[in-house]
Parts: sequence; C-alpha cells; structure tokens
Amino acid sequence: MVTETSLSLFPLAGVPLIEGGVDLAAVVTSALETSGRSLVDGDIVVLAQKIVSKAEGRLVELAGVTASAQAIDIARQVDKDPRLVELILSEAQEVMRVRKGVLIVRHRLGLVLANAGIDQSNIDHDGQPRALLLPVDPDASARTLRAALAERCGVDVAVLIIDSLGRAWRTGTTGTAIGVAGMPALLDLRGREDLHGRRLETSELGLADEVAAAASLVMGQADEGRPIVIVRGVEHDRRDGSAADLIRPRHMDLFA
Amino acid sequence: MVTETSLSLFPLAGVPLIEGGVDLAAVVTSALETSGRSLVDGDIVVLAQKIVSKAEGRLVELAGVTASAQAIDIARQVDKDPRLVELILSEAQEVMRVRKGVLIVRHRLGLVLANAGIDQSNIDHDGQPRALLLPVDPDASARTLRAALAERCGVDVAVLIIDSLGRAWRTGTTGTAIGVAGMPALLDLRGREDLHGRRLETSELGLADEVAAAASLVMGQADEGRPIVIVRGVEHDRRDGSAADLIRPRHMDLFA
Repeated sequence: MVTETSLSLFPLAGVPLIEGGVDLAAVVTSALETSGRSLVDGDIVVLAQKIVSKAEGRLVELAGVTASAQAIDIARQVDKDPRLVELILSEAQEVMRVRKGVLIVRHRLGLVLANAGIDQSNIDHDGQPRALLLPVDPDASARTLRAALAERCGVDVAVLIIDSLGRAWRTGTTGTAIGVAGMPALLDLRGREDLHGRRLETSELGLADEVAAAASLVMGQADEGRPIVIVRGVEHDRRDGSAADLIRPRHMDLFA
Repeated sequence: MVTETSLSLFPLAGVPLIEGGVDLAAVVTSALETSGRSLVDGDIVVLAQKIVSKAEGRLVELAGVTASAQAIDIARQVDKDPRLVELILSEAQEVMRVRKGVLIVRHRLGLVLANAGIDQSNIDHDGQPRALLLPVDPDASARTLRAALAERCGVDVAVLIIDSLGRAWRTGTTGTAIGVAGMPALLDLRGREDLHGRRLETSELGLADEVAAAASLVMGQADEGRPIVIVRGVEHDRRDGSAADLIRPRHMDLFA
C-alpha cells in the first residue's frame, strides 16, 4: 500500500484566507508554486473541510436565521444559540443525543457528527456571529478539484476533504475523510492472505480515513494555517471512491 | 505539531518472524542497521501489536483451552470455536454485542474490540489452531522498549503499539494506539486560539491515534511484513502518555 522507501507529507505554504467563490484549483497551484513543489501522479491532495466550505460560500450569518420552536427547545437543553441549533437541525436527518453542551446528529451525508459538523472557529465573524456548514456534496467537490488539477497540472492525483471528528468510544478527534475522489475510501482485503497463507479475518481497511488522520497531523488544529497537505507514497487505485463507503449503514449499526 | 518541511514515515526492513522471548529492542536496532537508518530524537517508533504480543509469549494453543458453558453458548450464537470464545471472554470485562459472526467486548484494557483483539492471522499455527492475545500491559511494553532504545541508541524516541480497530459508525479498520510511551496520547488544545483569536471549540486531539493511522498506511494489513514503522516530524512532548487517555470513560459514553 506504500512504496518501499517511505510515505511523506508536506503542507503547502502561502494558502490565503479563503473567500466565497474562490477557485480552489488556482489556490492549490499557486500554493504549490509558493512552496516550490510540484504534484506527481498518485499524490493525494488533502484539504481541510473548512476551506472547501468557505470557497463554496457555506458561511451563514446567524442574524439571518430564524429558530424554530424545536430549535429553541433543544438550544435550551444543550445551552447553545437557538439559531445555531436551527442550522444544525437543518443539516441533520436525525437527532441522536441531546445533553448540556452536546448535540450529536446524523448529518444528511450520513456522518454522525457533533453540531452537524458546523464550526465557528477559524472563520472571520466580522463583528457578528457566523457559522460554517459542511460542503453540500464533498465527494463532488473533491471530484471537481481533481479534474481541475488534472487539467491545470497534467497529473492524476486523488483529492480528500477531511474534518476532525469525534469517536463513539474514544476521546479526542481524528482527521476523517468526508469527501473522496480518485482513490478508494474503503479497501476490501477479502481474499488476501497473510504471511502464512491464511485468509485474512479483518477484511476492510478505512484507507481514506488513515490518510486523513495522517494529513491532520500536518494540518494541526488551531492557528497553524496549513489547510492543504500533500500525501505522497500511498499506492492506490485511481478510481473514484466515495466518503459514503466509510459510513456504516444504519441497519448494520450494532450500537444504534 | 509538525515541522514546517514535512512528516515522513518509513518501514524497517529485515524484521524477522518474532518468537516468544525475543528482545524487541534488539530487533529494532538490527532492523535499523539492515535498513541503513538511524533514529533521531523525537522519532516515533511504531510497532504492530502482533509482534509485541508474540515477543511477550501471548500465543495460545486452542487445544489447551477448556470452554466454559457461557463460552459454548456464545460460540453457538456467533458461530466461532468455543475455545476461542473462552479466550475472548477471559480477556473481556463486558460482552457488548453478540451476533452471528460478531462478538464485541469491552477488553480489560477498556478498548471496545471485536473478538477482544484476539487474532488468528499472521501467526504460525504449526498444524494446530492458535490465537494471539493482546499484550498484558501495552503502555508498559512501550515504556520498556523506549527505555531500551534510549540506552542502546542514545535517543529520546516515543514508542507506539498499534492495532487495527473497527469503529462504531464507520466501516473499515484504522490503525489505533493501544500502547503509548514518550508522547501524549491525547492533546489538549483548550486555551488555544484560532486564526481570528477565537477560542477553539474542538478541545482535544487524538494525537497517538492519528500517528497510528499514518503508520498503519505503511505497515499494510496482509502479507507485507512491515510491522515496525518510524514516524519522523511530529512535534510532541516527551512525557509518557497512556493509551487509556484515548478511551472514553464509560460514564461519558453517550451511546452505551
């Protein structure tokens, strides 16, 4: 899955603060130039969800949001702004847990997310509260960028869009793939044999999530300003996977 | 969290099949030599759980195991060898889910694991079924190896022991830290500010799990034979964390 020599990851320098409507392929190519780097076939270009959402104009001013009765009720229970809760509910297919400080939903994309992945950090509030929603279709965003990079740079790269997600049984967030293009998200190992010729029992690997976690180490979490990371050395098929492949279907959820 | 230039990961070549009682520090130093590599301060030496368990003699012959009535009952429900189920129960503090083909327990270490992390792949069965248990105390195993490498190589490295674990809401396994020494497992970001000076809402990062996932990309899952990976470029404190820091306490488990 990796070349014999090594796996390497580097952040792109010179990524500006992203405004709505910006062309992310132009941002990537410009940052590559600033960094003195080029892409090579097989590279994985990993973007923080936040810059994709910003580029796609998913920043919402809370002043323009009207909270429903349900949002007001839940906001009281979780101690959050009712308008923020309204946005969370509008992005959710199901409310999973409501506790003081905690609102966990199943996002319309199928992801189980605190606050529907809506974040208020690292965005310019410009004096009034704003919130940033996830991209409408992160797989499509990844595919679009992959195609644009193929055209601009003449390279066959994969693109991942990642976010920092919590886990059910473990503390701390880890980088997790929410949009995938040009590589499989889930790797089916069934039929593979171990060193002793025994068929493998663990049959599926969360490949895109492992790459997302690795890239997250380079991005950092706070004020590092490194939202684009190149991952080099992961062998992968060039077909388009989907982040949905990493979501356990509800009927397979043993802990629902 | 990462040096400006890059993060790099490389596997060690020349790791032999591990027998019980082997000195893992000697294995690492010998494999470093074979690979033409040296450790530097701050490197993270990542080992697959499997080789640590083997070195510690955690390989059990099923022929020597007597299944209890409970194990026989559960084995029928999950369609597994009753002696294997007996081993799983002996490593568990709680049975969480029992379905055909699926036995999920809370391991005595606190980890939520299919089959208590007991694996039958990549071990020499030598004609009779064997199973490999997790190390008795993976944090202690990591600390011991870290101290031995400091003595042998004169370097201050961190050590992670990792396994491929499933997730509640997501398909596919990802590399996950089950033993930690010389670095924090969980990174507390509280008090850190974002690019706009706003306090971060996501407050904790599963640092060791992100490193584990990255290393897992290099190890592979099947017959690659790369159970030791060096991760270079992650900035971290040198204090001893514990894999237990990554386990959500039961009273905080919203989905129990």
